[in-house]
Amino acid sequence: MASGKILVAQGGGPTAVINQSLVGVALEARRFAHIGHIYGAHHGVRGIIDEDFADLTQETSHNLELVANTPSSALGSTRDKPDEAYCREIFKVLQAHKIGHFFYIGGNDSSDTVRIVSQQARAANYPLRSIHIPKTIDNDLVGNDHTPGFPSAARFVAQAFAGANLDNAALPGVYVGVVMGRHAGFLTAASALGKKFPDDGPHLIYLPERTFVIAQFLADVKSTYERYGRCVIAVSEGIHDASGTPIAALLAKEMEHDAHGNVQLSGNGALADLLCEEIKSKLKIKRVRGDTFGYLQRSFIGCVSDVDQREAREVGEKAVQFAMWGQHDGSVAIKRTGFYSVDYELLPLDAVAGKTRVMEDEFIAPSGTDVTDAFRMYLRPLLGSGMPDAFRLRHHPVDRVLNK
Amino acid sequence: MASGKILVAQGGGPTAVINQSLVGVALEARRFAHIGHIYGAHHGVRGIIDEDFADLTQETSHNLELVANTPSSALGSTRDKPDEAYCREIFKVLQAHKIGHFFYIGGNDSSDTVRIVSQQARAANYPLRSIHIPKTIDNDLVGNDHTPGFPSAARFVAQAFAGANLDNAALPGVYVGVVMGRHAGFLTAASALGKKFPDDGPHLIYLPERTFVIAQFLADVKSTYERYGRCVIAVSEGIHDASGTPIAALLAKEMEHDAHGNVQLSGNGALADLLCEEIKSKLKIKRVRGDTFGYLQRSFIGCVSDVDQREAREVGEKAVQFAMWGQHDGSVAIKRTGFYSVDYELLPLDAVAGKTRVMEDEFIAPSGTDVTDAFRMYLRPLLGSGMPDAFRLRHHPVDRVLNK
Repeated sequence: MASGKILVAQGGGPTAVINQSLVGVALEARRFAHIGHIYGAHHGVRGIIDEDFADLTQETSHNLELVANTPSSALGSTRDKPDEAYCREIFKVLQAHKIGHFFYIGGNDSSDTVRIVSQQARAANYPLRSIHIPKTIDNDLVGNDHTPGFPSAARFVAQAFAGANLDNAALPGVYVGVVMGRHAGFLTAASALGKKFPDDGPHLIYLPERTFVIAQFLADVKSTYERYGRCVIAVSEGIHDASGTPIAALLAKEMEHDAHGNVQLSGNGALADLLCEEIKSKLKIKRVRGDTFGYLQRSFIGCVSDVDQREAREVGEKAVQFAMWGQHDGSVAIKRTGFYSVDYELLPLDAVAGKTRVMEDEFIAPSGTDVTDAFRMYLRPLLGSGMPDAFRLRHHPVDRVLNK
Repeated sequence: MASGKILVAQGGGPTAVINQSLVGVALEARRFAHIGHIYGAHHGVRGIIDEDFADLTQETSHNLELVANTPSSALGSTRDKPDEAYCREIFKVLQAHKIGHFFYIGGNDSSDTVRIVSQQARAANYPLRSIHIPKTIDNDLVGNDHTPGFPSAARFVAQAFAGANLDNAALPGVYVGVVMGRHAGFLTAASALGKKFPDDGPHLIYLPERTFVIAQFLADVKSTYERYGRCVIAVSEGIHDASGTPIAALLAKEMEHDAHGNVQLSGNGALADLLCEEIKSKLKIKRVRGDTFGYLQRSFIGCVSDVDQREAREVGEKAVQFAMWGQHDGSVAIKRTGFYSVDYELLPLDAVAGKTRVMEDEFIAPSGTDVTDAFRMYLRPLLGSGMPDAFRLRHHPVDRVLNK
């Protein structure tokens, strides 16, 4: 039987609700009499091999609740992607501390780390229960209806576009908003939920699931601008041409912009700025503005989905229950059971690790620049309660007197 | 006596609460029996000279309340800055429609427009009451304790930095957030209100009220990074060297980046990206990220100060009362009367028009890279109720076993 010591860690990019999962583990574990200690590793797997642990057993439940409602990884995170050798170091530390249960909250890479550690423990005949707890704003874990962290980031993106659309309606022009998500377009697609009236933006949505053709993009912007006198565009940072080359790289080259080869093309405002320059120079539109949502979309404090909070807490709780009562290592997954309710299951680690989900075809409109109602129905309940709403003055024109 | 027709318009950049002022005018005017019509001009002064009016008299009070809670200018806005000739066109339209009261909601430029129109009406002996209603996220109107719109934008900036700081603590590195405000640093300084624990960011704040010296900036970042292992920086888009040259222009030149002279240096991500490149190349720090808050900070839906909402409503109401019961044209101003309460007065248009307030010296720390407690006391009540808060796990280290 596994020992009474738990280790929990957080990996990859922070989210608005990842601490709910941490606290779900810590509080649920207190229900089990044989659990003597709950350790948290600082900065993910890096903190494990450094033996840099916090004793969460000594936390008050009140402070844990406050931390649960705080965005970003309270234990710290890491970008380390462990290979077999790195995982042997992890395993060595788990053995030395007599850890019986290992919980790792993270995305694809984290699930792969759990998979390797699980294998090594089995090979060494060491009694370890290893559970991966899902987390990613990209929503790109297979086998999950959606992943904790995504709904809150999606809510931020929807609210940001709702506001940007109102701003753009007041001072018409072209607005480009660049959204995170290198391979999966879910977060960019969430911009569509910021739309209320038929002529609202985003009018065009560009996803990494579809090939981006610059000439077609310019034609789309031109016709939208001619129709509405303005154009709001949501763009995934991962857009690429047919060969897979990032659009930022193509545009930078075209502009002979990158003479020293030292201009970083991701994690900054380059893509938005380059697309804006392209629209200005080719379409001769004057007022063109671009924003890159950057870190705001994953860590903004005070824009969170209550549904996401609850589910992130539950995946942590369920992870402990699966560990204590089950016979298998695995990855906790969210299943949708109604409109709207969910349940949780434990998937084999092999089924999740190292795989990437992208947006299903049924979620993308045939035009390639919009989402479908199926996607709207999929996303809406995840955004939670209290979504802000936008209203307009009704149409009551006044007759001209000077007859200009 | 002025006629029973009111015209109201909205100018300049939208804010989260500018529609509160519009609705304050529209609803308060309904109390006065001799007011027969309330017109709203579409797209500010541009809509006046185009005679493009909406009849707000026909709006329901319910829809007006919904619009009041919607960010961005419901009537539309304009960047037009009227000169004497333009104002004569405005005046011609006001006469033709027999407008007796003119309310213009906006910043510096808008108050100057009201001043000129007021003069022209007086010169023509036309009975017109002209009132400027303050609005600007820059907080740069003289004679006001603060301006409607600023508190909500400040709240967004404070929340954004609170989240960015948590993200940066989880994955340490350097983070640069560029904030709006070309001449006045109030909005950038609001980042300081996102700080809670002594080692929280923003660790450095750069304001347009102080000369920006690149070498000193790099030294500041270096020492902060050495002390905390990370560094969160708030930068105003308006930072400049001793000669007034924008820093983005200086850095772009240094990098020979701008070969074609066609790279726009404002209204995009250039400043953040250039500062990040500078830190990476000179300080050899690997993880350096920059965000430009752009339009999100002035139009994000769902991040608003209730104090700001209430005051924006009141300046609209008071404008109508000053117009109906007073004998003078003027600009409505907010006066602080307690901690925290306000009252409103009508300033002469000459006292406000075309003048720019910048941050008072008492609000800026001697280091030039932080704010004072006087500023914190000034800003805190404006942010309103329900500010989200951040909490940490307490320090309970676990002894190492492997003694690495």
